[in-house]
Amino acid sequence: MNNHLDSLFNPENIAVVGASNNPLKAGYVIVQNLINIGYPKKIFPINIKEDHICGIKSYRSLYDIEDKVEMVVLIMPAGAIFDVMKDIENRMKSKNDIKVIVCASADFAETKTPEGIKRQNHLIEISKKYGIRIVGPNCIGVIDNVNRVDTTFVETLLPKESRGKKGGISFISQSGAVAASLLMSGASQPAPISFNKFVSIGNMADIDFIDLLKYFENDEDTKVIGLYLEGYSDGRRLINTIAEITVKKPVVVLKVGRSEKGASAASSHTGSLAGSDVVYDSAFKQYGVIRVDTLQELMDTMQAFDSLKLPDDGNVFVLSQAGGPGIYCTDAVSNQNNLEMPIIEDITKEKLKEIAPAMSSICKPEGYADITAAANVRHHVESLKVIINDSNVSSVLFITVVPTFLPQDKLAEKMIDLLENEGYRNKKSVFISIMSGNYVWECRKSIEEKGIYTFASPDQAVKALANMVRYSKYLKRIKGGSANE
Amino acid sequence: MNNHLDSLFNPENIAVVGASNNPLKAGYVIVQNLINIGYPKKIFPINIKEDHICGIKSYRSLYDIEDKVEMVVLIMPAGAIFDVMKDIENRMKSKNDIKVIVCASADFAETKTPEGIKRQNHLIEISKKYGIRIVGPNCIGVIDNVNRVDTTFVETLLPKESRGKKGGISFISQSGAVAASLLMSGASQPAPISFNKFVSIGNMADIDFIDLLKYFENDEDTKVIGLYLEGYSDGRRLINTIAEITVKKPVVVLKVGRSEKGASAASSHTGSLAGSDVVYDSAFKQYGVIRVDTLQELMDTMQAFDSLKLPDDGNVFVLSQAGGPGIYCTDAVSNQNNLEMPIIEDITKEKLKEIAPAMSSICKPEGYADITAAANVRHHVESLKVIINDSNVSSVLFITVVPTFLPQDKLAEKMIDLLENEGYRNKKSVFISIMSGNYVWECRKSIEEKGIYTFASPDQAVKALANMVRYSKYLKRIKGGSANE
Repeated sequence: MNNHLDSLFNPENIAVVGASNNPLKAGYVIVQNLINIGYPKKIFPINIKEDHICGIKSYRSLYDIEDKVEMVVLIMPAGAIFDVMKDIENRMKSKNDIKVIVCASADFAETKTPEGIKRQNHLIEISKKYGIRIVGPNCIGVIDNVNRVDTTFVETLLPKESRGKKGGISFISQSGAVAASLLMSGASQPAPISFNKFVSIGNMADIDFIDLLKYFENDEDTKVIGLYLEGYSDGRRLINTIAEITVKKPVVVLKVGRSEKGASAASSHTGSLAGSDVVYDSAFKQYGVIRVDTLQELMDTMQAFDSLKLPDDGNVFVLSQAGGPGIYCTDAVSNQNNLEMPIIEDITKEKLKEIAPAMSSICKPEGYADITAAANVRHHVESLKVIINDSNVSSVLFITVVPTFLPQDKLAEKMIDLLENEGYRNKKSVFISIMSGNYVWECRKSIEEKGIYTFASPDQAVKALANMVRYSKYLKRIKGGSANE
Repeated sequence: MNNHLDSLFNPENIAVVGASNNPLKAGYVIVQNLINIGYPKKIFPINIKEDHICGIKSYRSLYDIEDKVEMVVLIMPAGAIFDVMKDIENRMKSKNDIKVIVCASADFAETKTPEGIKRQNHLIEISKKYGIRIVGPNCIGVIDNVNRVDTTFVETLLPKESRGKKGGISFISQSGAVAASLLMSGASQPAPISFNKFVSIGNMADIDFIDLLKYFENDEDTKVIGLYLEGYSDGRRLINTIAEITVKKPVVVLKVGRSEKGASAASSHTGSLAGSDVVYDSAFKQYGVIRVDTLQELMDTMQAFDSLKLPDDGNVFVLSQAGGPGIYCTDAVSNQNNLEMPIIEDITKEKLKEIAPAMSSICKPEGYADITAAANVRHHVESLKVIINDSNVSSVLFITVVPTFLPQDKLAEKMIDLLENEGYRNKKSVFISIMSGNYVWECRKSIEEKGIYTFASPDQAVKALANMVRYSKYLKRIKGGSANE
């Protein structure tokens, strides 16, 4: 069935049923997003009244399109599904070209009404008859940044130059709103996030977690898989599928319904039984699945996996230009049971003392240096360099609170020189916190545009680091054949 | 001594020793910040070479200024302290006008060198002789937004229209970098934060936590006090001072040095012994001090106290326009042991069913409603209104993930109508999460400009709410004379 998922992420032409010229309609945003991302093949808007949608020739029905159509996006009112499926049926009889439907329309089985269920059953029945796979209904759509496909109706204000960039994160969301929220917040980072593939799966009438996970497992462009999960009918199968993947690549999960109230709300929402959270939780631990608690931790952790070297172990050095934030970070490190601030080599200590400003506090405590606000760009970068070269250090938490007299553009340039051009990012993973707010935005943006993620705050960096170390230890455990984490 | 602190926050004219025309120098930023905030009295830059600094007439020495000078800001190299104190001494002998020194220069006792200690001792000795109070040395300065004083050398990119706005939060930071970071991130919010008073206390050579806390205790403009704390020589006295304040107004503390490593780093940094964190922690609990874990929680909690009604108790209703984020929020609520999602009145349930879109999920589970992505502005606002009117509800977590077809400007307008114009914000506290990123920025900004804080994410809102409920319960406990929280 993988050829159908190929069609989902790289379709030969896309028809949009319910396309609109009204900017407040989802049917407008979908066409506009396809244009904005630079979808290189043909878009066929379907609208019973208009001749053009967003400047593109529009069609009265699917049946009128002469070219091949591999993907059909549905965003018309759900009540029209019977007519639309008739068009599809007629088209399949003659052309037999449609491989996948992305049904973004809502008001199907999720309503739990007889009408909604009937509509969904009809959608499935006709699709099955002709071997068409379905995403949705009641989803916000599908994105593939490599192939420049964006069928979502989410307006993110993503800058044009960021659209269609290739990233290593592929994401599956069981909630359209969580999906939309991640796209919007991801678009608002210093360097906007480019997902590799992004799927809002809605009601999972057909294509579901398992199909997509298996596809992402073998997708070379996917470095890390993210999931937002409410519940799945066959939890055991889901876990088994994930367990096969985590041997190869990390899977980061935000699973809700931890609490009784949350599980009850999830059951009202998704309809499917959430299943015992405790069972999921212990299975996640057993199979090296990284479970996160917040949307922020989800974003940070996925991007860390995508852009930073996996640490060998939990030996992390805290290098701070600022006392307060350094101490704050040290507390956060101590709060993670898989992180350790190591004793570095004497030679490294000596070098640090030579490099850093006179009043620096070196290795008090061990594994920590405060190079003070007197640190210039060279002090920052040279200190980082000798620490990376220390054999007792596996990763570095690097913190700076940029004062007026520290030239940010130079700092970004020299950090990029060290990490990217001299290749130090391949030696150790560096978790960079450049603080704070708009004042340091351009500095962070320059670094992030080189594919090196930066964190808004040291506590966020520590959580992402601890998650990566958790995965690193899991890999060692399964490869070493040991039963203990 | 309070008259000297009045001089700190509302000085009659300010001299800046070490003022500069070089934008990369702190002595430039201080003068520029005073100009930018619109300091209404006179600024006297002191520079031995220049005739004008930032367009303002400059003086060769403090002694040359004819007008009254109540505050002197020092930002020259520390080595010049002996000459500067000679000038101050001469001035005091003839004019006797200086009340307070803000010593922003570093390289004093914090260096732990004999020279640094000598410099600090000299600064203290001469100041004491003439009854001058000192903030610092080694601090980033002082802000009073009511009186339009900003002696900091932090460039925040705060928009001009936000400077000099009056807020209710007064903050004391033992770390200049944490202070700078809070100012920078606060300036980067939808509606930039305006602190009431903001003090970076540096080495605490003279004015310290106790002085400022007592001043803020009686400052009517201060609604909530925030502290960043590393350690204090007389912890018992600090706690007793805070305990007297929390009876009247909330105190929110980010105290670092929780861990052994963190405490060791704090001791290297501040010099003072941190004291046992466990002792602080239990004293905080005993006296209703709100201890937070992260910089984000600190900002959120202070702003919630400043802008939202204190909830009567932990009965919170979760009103979400989006299933996923609603469930996510419900999990976060369940994770707080002082929050409860109440059973609302039958009449409220009926009204909600009438108001909300057909497919809404009302009170499954109790205390929760998902009004779905079909909710228009009226659905949002009317639902919120009937929930606020329910007598079993003390606060509301309000979540919306704005789709393209929901007009954000209207949503902001109607939310403001309800909460501000119709006075519903005085009935119950509403914790608003409008998601996500740049796409909803203007909507959040409109609401925040009315003094109603909005949260970037529901989990952040829940933490701030739980902290407010903690304080509310403390007030009830001490006023009711009960020994149990």
